[in-house]
Amino acid sequence: MVKVGVLGATGYTGFELLKIFHQHPEVEIAFLSSESYAGQRYAQVYPCPYEEVLVSPDEAPLDAADVVFLCTPHGASAPLAQRVLEAGARCIDLSADFRLRDAAVYGAWYHTHPLPHLLSEAIYGLTEIYRAQIATARLVANPGCYPTGPLLALWPLLRQGALMDERIIIDAKSGVSGAGAKPSPTTHFVTVHDNFSAYNVGHVHRHTPEIEQELSAYAGRPVRIVFSPHLLPVSRGILSTIYIRTVPGWDLERILDAWQTAYAHEPFVNVLPQGSLATLAHTVNTNRCALSAASAGVEGEYILITSLDNLLKGASGQAVQNMNVMFGLPETHGLIA
Amino acid sequence: MVKVGVLGATGYTGFELLKIFHQHPEVEIAFLSSESYAGQRYAQVYPCPYEEVLVSPDEAPLDAADVVFLCTPHGASAPLAQRVLEAGARCIDLSADFRLRDAAVYGAWYHTHPLPHLLSEAIYGLTEIYRAQIATARLVANPGCYPTGPLLALWPLLRQGALMDERIIIDAKSGVSGAGAKPSPTTHFVTVHDNFSAYNVGHVHRHTPEIEQELSAYAGRPVRIVFSPHLLPVSRGILSTIYIRTVPGWDLERILDAWQTAYAHEPFVNVLPQGSLATLAHTVNTNRCALSAASAGVEGEYILITSLDNLLKGASGQAVQNMNVMFGLPETHGLIA
Amino acid sequence: MVKVGVLGATGYTGFELLKIFHQHPEVEIAFLSSESYAGQRYAQVYPCPYEEVLVSPDEAPLDAADVVFLCTPHGASAPLAQRVLEAGARCIDLSADFRLRDAAVYGAWYHTHPLPHLLSEAIYGLTEIYRAQIATARLVANPGCYPTGPLLALWPLLRQGALMDERIIIDAKSGVSGAGAKPSPTTHFVTVHDNFSAYNVGHVHRHTPEIEQELSAYAGRPVRIVFSPHLLPVSRGILSTIYIRTVPGWDLERILDAWQTAYAHEPFVNVLPQGSLATLAHTVNTNRCALSAASAGVEGEYILITSLDNLLKGASGQAVQNMNVMFGLPETHGLIA
Amino acid sequence: MVKVGVLGATGYTGFELLKIFHQHPEVEIAFLSSESYAGQRYAQVYPCPYEEVLVSPDEAPLDAADVVFLCTPHGASAPLAQRVLEAGARCIDLSADFRLRDAAVYGAWYHTHPLPHLLSEAIYGLTEIYRAQIATARLVANPGCYPTGPLLALWPLLRQGALMDERIIIDAKSGVSGAGAKPSPTTHFVTVHDNFSAYNVGHVHRHTPEIEQELSAYAGRPVRIVFSPHLLPVSRGILSTIYIRTVPGWDLERILDAWQTAYAHEPFVNVLPQGSLATLAHTVNTNRCALSAASAGVEGEYILITSLDNLLKGASGQAVQNMNVMFGLPETHGLIA
Repeated sequence: MVKVGVLGATGYTGFELLKIFHQHPEVEIAFLSSESYAGQRYAQVYPCPYEEVLVSPDEAPLDAADVVFLCTPHGASAPLAQRVLEAGARCIDLSADFRLRDAAVYGAWYHTHPLPHLLSEAIYGLTEIYRAQIATARLVANPGCYPTGPLLALWPLLRQGALMDERIIIDAKSGVSGAGAKPSPTTHFVTVHDNFSAYNVGHVHRHTPEIEQELSAYAGRPVRIVFSPHLLPVSRGILSTIYIRTVPGWDLERILDAWQTAYAHEPFVNVLPQGSLATLAHTVNTNRCALSAASAGVEGEYILITSLDNLLKGASGQAVQNMNVMFGLPETHGLIA
Repeated sequence: MVKVGVLGATGYTGFELLKIFHQHPEVEIAFLSSESYAGQRYAQVYPCPYEEVLVSPDEAPLDAADVVFLCTPHGASAPLAQRVLEAGARCIDLSADFRLRDAAVYGAWYHTHPLPHLLSEAIYGLTEIYRAQIATARLVANPGCYPTGPLLALWPLLRQGALMDERIIIDAKSGVSGAGAKPSPTTHFVTVHDNFSAYNVGHVHRHTPEIEQELSAYAGRPVRIVFSPHLLPVSRGILSTIYIRTVPGWDLERILDAWQTAYAHEPFVNVLPQGSLATLAHTVNTNRCALSAASAGVEGEYILITSLDNLLKGASGQAVQNMNVMFGLPETHGLIA
Repeated sequence: MVKVGVLGATGYTGFELLKIFHQHPEVEIAFLSSESYAGQRYAQVYPCPYEEVLVSPDEAPLDAADVVFLCTPHGASAPLAQRVLEAGARCIDLSADFRLRDAAVYGAWYHTHPLPHLLSEAIYGLTEIYRAQIATARLVANPGCYPTGPLLALWPLLRQGALMDERIIIDAKSGVSGAGAKPSPTTHFVTVHDNFSAYNVGHVHRHTPEIEQELSAYAGRPVRIVFSPHLLPVSRGILSTIYIRTVPGWDLERILDAWQTAYAHEPFVNVLPQGSLATLAHTVNTNRCALSAASAGVEGEYILITSLDNLLKGASGQAVQNMNVMFGLPETHGLIA
Repeated sequence: MVKVGVLGATGYTGFELLKIFHQHPEVEIAFLSSESYAGQRYAQVYPCPYEEVLVSPDEAPLDAADVVFLCTPHGASAPLAQRVLEAGARCIDLSADFRLRDAAVYGAWYHTHPLPHLLSEAIYGLTEIYRAQIATARLVANPGCYPTGPLLALWPLLRQGALMDERIIIDAKSGVSGAGAKPSPTTHFVTVHDNFSAYNVGHVHRHTPEIEQELSAYAGRPVRIVFSPHLLPVSRGILSTIYIRTVPGWDLERILDAWQTAYAHEPFVNVLPQGSLATLAHTVNTNRCALSAASAGVEGEYILITSLDNLLKGASGQAVQNMNVMFGLPETHGLIA
């Protein structure tokens, strides 16, 4: 049994972790912490039958856990990660604090990084790509919800040099849970329902440098994106429509082949056959990422469509997938493939 | 032209009023006030092209208006109503402050009424029932969103003594805009979407005494209800399923006849033929109230189903309908019948 | 391993069964049949990664299965059940064909029963109530989606004589998947979305005699209901608001106690504490049924609110729960408690 | 009063027309026809109080109308348009039959055009661009729902030579009513709700040649697009995210200036200020088209976002706007600006 703790357990990613833990055959809950709900049963926070009692973060017995999940905001996670590591537990951080390897880039998009020395130790937790390093990592930086789909789609192409050297357009659409549980005018039901809107388009959203960091690493040269996030009137799911140009020698079949080769043995990557396009329904409530491609109707241009559940493969599901890797468990334990 | 002012113009009922005013051929906007958005254009508050600039409540030129709509919370409305009347304007209050004729009842459900002398002057603004008094009223208490449907359904029956002397069950289901624009965990998209829940069931919700006051007045004896509000995952609309027992001599045809007779010339009451049941789609985005009835399958028991748009016939639409009556305008001006 | 077959596997209940089977550690799929999709992979029918190939019903190897699930329409199920039993497999029928013990009642609500002799053998598959008989049954009649919640709420009360001898009102609200996968004007997105409607109210819906049969059996006297189904703009979930009158000596605490006693060891019945009301969010995507109660504000009157996922505890989840009982497996295998 | 007739009045565009007619001060309904519902009152087709009786198409008194709206499918509209014109009425066709000026292009995307001689007479009914020709037209080809937004956004730019000579990417997202009222698996509530999907991406959707025809006309050179339609889980509204590259000398301010100049006096075009992005909520249930722009974060690249209600400015609203122009009425009559 792996003993798990969660700091910041009452946000949406914490609730998803708890649901997964209750389905996981090899997990024992060491603690769940919450600043606002300390002392309450989990069933008082969300409509569920979970009777675990929340503790305050200060009272969380870090050393009773083999691994601690940080579901805390960026900025708050970094010092907590340090405490977790000092207590001898491994750490999976679901915030942005350790995703950017370059402290200067982190500083440009967030604020001065408080613990830059930990940045170099952190492993980017995109399981399919960094599995070997994750297996032995002390500190895993779980990817943002938007990056995972485009990165899985583009990795097999970029590392084979398939794409022209120009900006890639990612037109992404996310469900509302991606904005977190905190009430605000922008997450009010009446604001979102029957509506659809873009926000932070261009080169503004904070997942932009994370995507560019990874794509550049896969390509071995700087890759720049145009990133247009949109808000869907659904609770869960991200669908990304990606516009690419390939170098000569690539066509639709070769793109699909590259994916099938790369992901043949991956339980959570679902490469759709030619003629099928990924939808949210392919992946919501599962830990899957679906990949699909179509011709753009112009020589050498293609449209890639990826889908995943932002709270599962885009957050808590991938975090548990990483935990399974870190502790030598079957990778699908607790997760829906 | 009727010169209109709105205090508290940036809630949902204020936004609906503004949309109606822009379609109304005989309305001129004197002012729109807002504490939070004073100095901003309306288009900065909601996604719309309205360029009116909001003023702070203190600077609202009450005497420049023929009628002032109060879209302010209960408690806040009463003193504002007094100021409006003193400034020489007529007043339509969309809050609960003047709906209960008995200050003691108001006190039991809310708090001590600050201006009980105004209670006796206020006319309950259910247009179809109180039209004559509304026409000459200085102060109209616009009905709550839940009461209007059940009251229109039960008025023709109770005043003819059609119902057994026992509690009436009203199982009501409302869209989220009824909870107002203020963000809270209960109006967060992720809480409401794909969900359905009851709240304040039994004899708890504050619209209960308002409904009982009116039903008792129509029946000429005390009438008691069981009232179960539910929250629907839609933005607009209230559907009420009402369980009644009739005295001998009444059947489904007679119920429908009573409605048709009562509402034959009413542009906003839509009595559905036998076999049809009211749905939200019959009324949402209009000022209509739809009435329908069916047998409960038990001798003398019937199910009445009413539907309306909580922001229109249940609030701002009925408020403008009342304004039209008060100023001798065609009752459908600015409204969808 | 239990070898399972599904006849009619491409409706919503079939898809749910398949999803459960893929999470179930002791199930092996013998066959999935479909008239319309025979020869296709399941992934061509619904957005999922399941590669099982559908066979035509005539080619389904009934004798290769330990148990066959019938996801076929009423009328079609009865003769298929006979064939399954003759082939030596046990049978769980998700249609209405074996739910009514009295062939005359079946005849009055459906049509002449084709195989009345099998009616007496069939066990009504409400697991918590008929577990012992289900364990040894050859033929299980899985309950309708609407009955399960009200039956679980009323069983502990009726068998203790808690309720007055009068009709019980069940105001029920269901998601759209309850209407099946067949396209029709009433299930068109534009018809349902932002809408809410009642249908078959009173004593008309075909789940009425099923509920009355069971309630009467629990009470030991005829129990009659008024049943008002409504259609919610959600895909999944049923919430029932039930209006009851108790005999003297019962109050809210005693109702909750009766439930807690009855269901203390039930993994799938979630009795909520006083002050909490069941919502769809308590149960959707799980095999749980949530029970809650409140005072109606009138002496001796109470409001019971139950919630479940119509495709899981209301159909396929309960069917697998029954299978687990029939084959001596842990009852939660493959299911979310 | 303008006497109006509608052929094919029971689809979604017909229902919208009827709702507009009931708000329009200068319209008299000559007839509404339907093959499937002839002889029924309109209130039997959709939840509404409209008592007009539908006639069969053959019995529609074409010569009693000043203008006939064709809400019939492509292929069916062309011969009906001819009959309408022969009867002496003017014709507004909401199908695709007269939108493509080149019969060969029509043939390539649909089938051989049955009445190519009428193609040259038809005026493309994008009111803001072709108002003068529409005023005197006998036959107006009302634009498709997808084209209107991108065309209004790109017209002021292309005619001023603002864009690089390369394909323009239009990532469009539409509500379900755009797929029509006919039930199918793809419009089933359970398929669409909580889902989001792309379809006919690249150079496949039939609105592609219509958009390219118009853009090429505005630019004076062939313009090619990549067009990716998506299906939103909402009933109404289209939001298009358009990726463009400008020639030197253009920036965000100049784009917004070009729009403001072009549409300064247009009641139905809402140019949003810099920093605001168009959402569905800006336009749904109105006849407005909202235009907005942002930097793509790359020198010379911009993101244009347009929004409209596919059934109003994208279909029936624009059709009535055209009718108002054709009959010299105020352009906003019956419509929400």
